Amino acid sequence: MQAMATTRHGRKLTVNRLVRAAIPVAAAIGVASLIARLRRAPTRSPLGDLRRPGSRPRVVVLGAGFGGLSAALGIARGSGDADVVLVDQHNYHLFTPLLYQVAVGLVDSNSITYPLRAVAYRNGIRFVLGEAQGFDVDGKRLLTSAGAIAYDYLVVAMGSVTNFYGLSEVAERALPLKTVGDADAIRNVVLGALELGDVERDADRRCRLLTFPIVGGGPTGLELAGALSALVGDVAGREYPGIRPEEISIQVLEAGGRVLDAMEPATQEIAMRRLRERGVEIRLNSPLSGVSGNDYLVGGGQRLEAEALIWAAGVRGSPLLERLPGQRTRDNRVLVDATLRIPDHQEIFVIGDSAACIPEPGARPLPGTAPVAIQQGTSVARNVRHLLRGEPASAFRYRHPGNLVALGRHAAVAEVLGLVVDGLPAWLLWRAVHLGWLTGLRNRLQVLLDWSLLYVAPRQTEWLRSATRLPPRIPGRRFTSVASERNSEANDSPLSK
Amino acid sequence: MQAMATTRHGRKLTVNRLVRAAIPVAAAIGVASLIARLRRAPTRSPLGDLRRPGSRPRVVVLGAGFGGLSAALGIARGSGDADVVLVDQHNYHLFTPLLYQVAVGLVDSNSITYPLRAVAYRNGIRFVLGEAQGFDVDGKRLLTSAGAIAYDYLVVAMGSVTNFYGLSEVAERALPLKTVGDADAIRNVVLGALELGDVERDADRRCRLLTFPIVGGGPTGLELAGALSALVGDVAGREYPGIRPEEISIQVLEAGGRVLDAMEPATQEIAMRRLRERGVEIRLNSPLSGVSGNDYLVGGGQRLEAEALIWAAGVRGSPLLERLPGQRTRDNRVLVDATLRIPDHQEIFVIGDSAACIPEPGARPLPGTAPVAIQQGTSVARNVRHLLRGEPASAFRYRHPGNLVALGRHAAVAEVLGLVVDGLPAWLLWRAVHLGWLTGLRNRLQVLLDWSLLYVAPRQTEWLRSATRLPPRIPGRRFTSVASERNSEANDSPLSK
Repeated sequence: MQAMATTRHGRKLTVNRLVRAAIPVAAAIGVASLIARLRRAPTRSPLGDLRRPGSRPRVVVLGAGFGGLSAALGIARGSGDADVVLVDQHNYHLFTPLLYQVAVGLVDSNSITYPLRAVAYRNGIRFVLGEAQGFDVDGKRLLTSAGAIAYDYLVVAMGSVTNFYGLSEVAERALPLKTVGDADAIRNVVLGALELGDVERDADRRCRLLTFPIVGGGPTGLELAGALSALVGDVAGREYPGIRPEEISIQVLEAGGRVLDAMEPATQEIAMRRLRERGVEIRLNSPLSGVSGNDYLVGGGQRLEAEALIWAAGVRGSPLLERLPGQRTRDNRVLVDATLRIPDHQEIFVIGDSAACIPEPGARPLPGTAPVAIQQGTSVARNVRHLLRGEPASAFRYRHPGNLVALGRHAAVAEVLGLVVDGLPAWLLWRAVHLGWLTGLRNRLQVLLDWSLLYVAPRQTEWLRSATRLPPRIPGRRFTSVASERNSEANDSPLSK
Repeated sequence: MQAMATTRHGRKLTVNRLVRAAIPVAAAIGVASLIARLRRAPTRSPLGDLRRPGSRPRVVVLGAGFGGLSAALGIARGSGDADVVLVDQHNYHLFTPLLYQVAVGLVDSNSITYPLRAVAYRNGIRFVLGEAQGFDVDGKRLLTSAGAIAYDYLVVAMGSVTNFYGLSEVAERALPLKTVGDADAIRNVVLGALELGDVERDADRRCRLLTFPIVGGGPTGLELAGALSALVGDVAGREYPGIRPEEISIQVLEAGGRVLDAMEPATQEIAMRRLRERGVEIRLNSPLSGVSGNDYLVGGGQRLEAEALIWAAGVRGSPLLERLPGQRTRDNRVLVDATLRIPDHQEIFVIGDSAACIPEPGARPLPGTAPVAIQQGTSVARNVRHLLRGEPASAFRYRHPGNLVALGRHAAVAEVLGLVVDGLPAWLLWRAVHLGWLTGLRNRLQVLLDWSLLYVAPRQTEWLRSATRLPPRIPGRRFTSVASERNSEANDSPLSK
């Protein structure tokens, strides 16, 4: 395969023209590279010191999501007198707000992961790949699969796990959306259903394959529904000529009486209208209540037939948080004081989805969103620096920057500066904010390219069966079990003469 | 996670500056989009006709690699009087020459796959996702997992499978490099070994983890070795501070007395020298002969200790080819006549890796390379058009365009126009040729971006454990089985005080 070829598939674009087109890109990247290299001042990672008992105070940060990463970077950059150890079960930071776009093949999972080792190396942080397994609070040690790590201050930013509210049968079948693997699985299941639907002739099985229920009317559920409708619009009847767009049913099942519970009524209104315009069915007061045979049960006992059910209904604190001292909420988040610490263990901070931070007596805890986590991380970093200098810690104050929800192609809704903005301006704002907010130049350029190419190149509809396991209930039968003998196949192929 | 945030990780790059930088990119893409849309003339896929017995002749192409895709497109574009059905077990075309770059995290797997449904839709080809399961030669039907498909002409372009030369124990452990899943698996195993090596303190286990043997001194083996040495140079001692670059051993095991067997002696010379300069050990006359306990055996019985052994030693025709009539070579490729057809079945063409095409009596069969496959596909398309018009088929003549082998960063060797070119010019040529040769604008831009970003942004070292299974012999113990009780961990953690 390594030899040259002069013949190519696809449109004609000579090497010459390509090289000419590449020159300005290369030049721009060259300049950016120079700037980046001048800015970069790599610090040696303090591995040598950490192998021996350290003389400097050590801050251990558990979890490299928005909260943990923000805390670790804040401490490492702001203070030369502490060692920072960052522990995560993955060696990358995941930009979760774009996860739903991975699930519909809009951006690639690689574009929203950022290597933690690179971040650690540049900032003098020691990164440890390991799963947390417990807390030795008295001995001040974090127990992980990579060994015990002693700390002077511990920042717990473990995030959350999907909450199935005790519906174990649903949990076995439904597709959550928390990790890269989840997003890849949803993508493969959705594209797999289109592949199967394209050749399925039985009406009931077609209907079952082409019904995509999404449980949960929060931002994640709505954004996924909108993106899914755009995917369907792009490929049904064209790249999948056997599927008519109207055969596909995208449903949002919301247990309560309204979507986007925490936002303004005007925002809720707009979201419902925009999604309905795009063919999404929104079913209010429709909690998923269980499984019956092959079907799901909704609310009062209605049956719902579907292969791929996506779960975007809620999260709870990681089970491991039960091993921390102090109180927890019903959804297993740790109650923290105004400085984000456990009341009786002032050396332990808990932030982000792991924490229940009640801004004022009687108020609801702050939601598990990225802005809350990032601001808490920054606050912890500042307080750790204060504490190391013997100064008191100050209380955390949350500044709410607004809300943004994408609703499919060229549509979104935004709450900014007390206004509710709709349509294309909101959509452009959504994209600009998320692009600016992404970690790292590489990811920004990759996502920008992914988004732009949708207007030029075909959709990414590769069904990478080998890359992720399919859930057991998406049948592989069509592609694996047909016998190879000459006369055994049932004569139902649409293609046999 | 959907709300806005003003704080970000990483270097400061305001939304403003980003938007300014995006304008020229967006403008360029806009223009390209317009051109693309003007050029695109989508034809309806002939699904309706195919469900009924067709009145027009039907050409079925099995396999959408270089050969099959080139044949299908050639027939569909050149002839309005035949239906073309393209069958593949994946719904994407894979640009295999860059697969080794996926294995080292240089480019992303998404950048080298191209959705077949989009190609089919634009060219009036009917695409069927299915695995071939047999041939009903007398009834002129191809048997697939998606049903039987009747044909008037059949083009078999199934490619090849990895050849382990009967070493079944090796086959169970070694990592081949044929599919997207293979490349992702190698990437995860290599990065996993670095993660484990970074914290492993036992010298023997470190050595075992950090030894990367590559079996096969052909182009694939050498290109992978060169790319792996570049990866190691980028991250060892820096992002993986616990690993010194000299601890890592990259070895190429070649059974014969020279690498790049089919190329010029000068080329072989240059390849060996360049790779050795980059720290790659090249072991000639060192066939892998089997497995002994945990170790591999090389040649006369030398033991080789390694976790991740990569297999790039050869291919053979798919086992299914045995069900075709006619003769086959020892490596299970189908012997074809001068027009690339099976002598006694002139309606069946066999091309690419599936075919043994002997250009003149006594000569060796043409190699299984992309240029051979593409030129054969073009030849088949021309001959099918002739045959449909009642004209005779003409003989296939191969024009060898030269050879190109990449040898790590800024190094390659090229055989062009009778010259052997070395160093940076060869490397630039390699990149230009492969970029131009890639399928589709999206993939070209993505790969260009991936390549360029290496000079600006950190390496992609995300170890996506959830995305692919690890082979059983890479132990997960470090990350899963350490007990969580307070006192149970052996006091060997480098991090405990």
